[in-house]
Amino acid sequence: METLMSTSWFVVPAHQHHALIKAAYLHRGYTAQESDDAARFCDMASTHGIRTHNGIKALHLDEHFGSKAGGCVPGAVIEALPSRFGGSAIWNANRKLGQSTAFAAMDEAIRLADHYGIGQVSVDNAFHYLWGGGYVMEAARRGYIAYTNCTAALAEVVPFGGRFPTLGTNPHSWGFPTTDALGYPIVIDWATSTVAMGRVQQLKREGKPLPPDAAVDAAGQPTTDPNQVAALVPFGAHKGFGLSLINELVAALIGGSLPTLRSRPIPDGEKRTCCFYFQVIHPDALSSGLFAQHRTQQQNLKAVLADVFGHGNENCTLPGQPEARAAAATAKAGGLLFSAAEIAEFNTIAQECGQPEWDLHSFATA
Amino acid sequence: METLMSTSWFVVPAHQHHALIKAAYLHRGYTAQESDDAARFCDMASTHGIRTHNGIKALHLDEHFGSKAGGCVPGAVIEALPSRFGGSAIWNANRKLGQSTAFAAMDEAIRLADHYGIGQVSVDNAFHYLWGGGYVMEAARRGYIAYTNCTAALAEVVPFGGRFPTLGTNPHSWGFPTTDALGYPIVIDWATSTVAMGRVQQLKREGKPLPPDAAVDAAGQPTTDPNQVAALVPFGAHKGFGLSLINELVAALIGGSLPTLRSRPIPDGEKRTCCFYFQVIHPDALSSGLFAQHRTQQQNLKAVLADVFGHGNENCTLPGQPEARAAAATAKAGGLLFSAAEIAEFNTIAQECGQPEWDLHSFATA
Repeated sequence: METLMSTSWFVVPAHQHHALIKAAYLHRGYTAQESDDAARFCDMASTHGIRTHNGIKALHLDEHFGSKAGGCVPGAVIEALPSRFGGSAIWNANRKLGQSTAFAAMDEAIRLADHYGIGQVSVDNAFHYLWGGGYVMEAARRGYIAYTNCTAALAEVVPFGGRFPTLGTNPHSWGFPTTDALGYPIVIDWATSTVAMGRVQQLKREGKPLPPDAAVDAAGQPTTDPNQVAALVPFGAHKGFGLSLINELVAALIGGSLPTLRSRPIPDGEKRTCCFYFQVIHPDALSSGLFAQHRTQQQNLKAVLADVFGHGNENCTLPGQPEARAAAATAKAGGLLFSAAEIAEFNTIAQECGQPEWDLHSFATA
Repeated sequence: METLMSTSWFVVPAHQHHALIKAAYLHRGYTAQESDDAARFCDMASTHGIRTHNGIKALHLDEHFGSKAGGCVPGAVIEALPSRFGGSAIWNANRKLGQSTAFAAMDEAIRLADHYGIGQVSVDNAFHYLWGGGYVMEAARRGYIAYTNCTAALAEVVPFGGRFPTLGTNPHSWGFPTTDALGYPIVIDWATSTVAMGRVQQLKREGKPLPPDAAVDAAGQPTTDPNQVAALVPFGAHKGFGLSLINELVAALIGGSLPTLRSRPIPDGEKRTCCFYFQVIHPDALSSGLFAQHRTQQQNLKAVLADVFGHGNENCTLPGQPEARAAAATAKAGGLLFSAAEIAEFNTIAQECGQPEWDLHSFATA
């Protein structure tokens, strides 16, 4: 069984997974639309091999920070706030489910980009949207250049040269419309810490050291011992630090409060919510039309990518390629791929919301 | 004299420096406006301690890649290309001086942001703008969030996991309007390679090793020996690689050609020019107005920065702080600060354009 668990994947039909996730969100008081959005998002994550942000993680997050903890409000209604600027929308999400908010915000940013060439949506009082890469990937599949950042739920990262964690793991996600050129969208998507706190916990369980320059101890000194880790550090020294700071600055300009208060009990009059920022660019709004060899814009993109990944660079992994490979494996298997351990966790979810448990032996393996 | 050269700065009156740089550009055939823009830019760089992109470097670049090499065309006129999008301008710079193009593009992006909340200017057929941080810093001083990226002149960087340099050192620059909060704008500004090729040359002269993970040899293997360096690598592994790739993707969508052809002799029908991308956001277009404790947006920004750089993080260097310190030292000295070696190079420039040489002993020291 151990061998089976570590090597086999069980093929779960997408509709069966969707139905369970939807039921779990409905059970927690979310509306049908929110629950559908949540399930759609988990489908996307699992289809693309994003095991850190699948349905198990989404519901776990909801339990610890969301509907059961007051961070997220089922049925909340997004308010569009007044904006005197055509290309910009500003929303108060009122702590609505992050996935519903992000899907809607990306749609709105696309609408603005169709009109103005570039559009942005700023979201105050937001709740965690899980995997920014999913939203930009979808916009890129629709032909747009898309970007999002957000402030992470907890301040776990020490500024470069500092001692105390005051920054989130603050991710950035960019998507590019390269499906014609490559068969899939390029998706550049990562947190600005060297590793995630979940990875530290995993290494602690496995008794393994961290990579260097990933974390500090309680005195602010570098450590590779997962038992000594008090906080994370940004990747790439001052450069990753700057990228992490960007999310705090954007959030501060939107309406976010002090990073060290986020998702924590707070003094009167302060805020503990995250902020989201979305931006979409229509590719026609960048194009000079003056491409060499009379190429079209897409042909030019393909030629540039062939140049970058030619000359002996053919074995590079492109950003977005692992997700595309996972999606191809999902399609080939005819369903979402989960381990036996994951299916056991889905069955705990099924128990919670009164749904039938999944029978491991009913699934094909891949 | 060696001691003097390594420890003393000579205070050159700003108007004297401006006049020399302007004369040097005029001598190379640039218009009065272009020459003024070039001198203004060099003033900015030297005021802020950007010694890698001062007047000496600017004229050196012009010699090797610019007006003397056909990469830049004195007197070129920027064409605004048709755009159906209100928030987006697309320009053919016709290889105009990069500094003039960048100043004008940032002004245009600000004008668009005033109307739409966010504005972008894409520039095809561009020539090197030197220090992106300068343009975003100025926009941030004017109260805006500003961003620029460009494709660097040469493909010197190997994609993560690859062997051959097909990417530029492709910098990103962000500026934030933090002058009220901090006394200076935050400027996050760096190349996406771990080090610049100029730094490799410097270490070679000094007989010192490179930092690890900065370069590869001709076989694509990591090396710290500056004599063995064939190409640079991105900072932060796949994360910096993604950031470098962004500039190539944006340039490919604008009109840029194959990265390995940039600034080099090219086959018929190809292009060898760089692309610029500028984006400006009006801070009002982000603001929900829902700041904790009834703070204004600027008060909220200040509170967030106090939180990030409190709690024992008071000794962190903020991005933009070194430039602000250099500007304060410049102001205190009452002129631009140059070393004796730099003044000798300015005198070579003076000889070239028939201007009087500077007398080292006429300058105050600081």
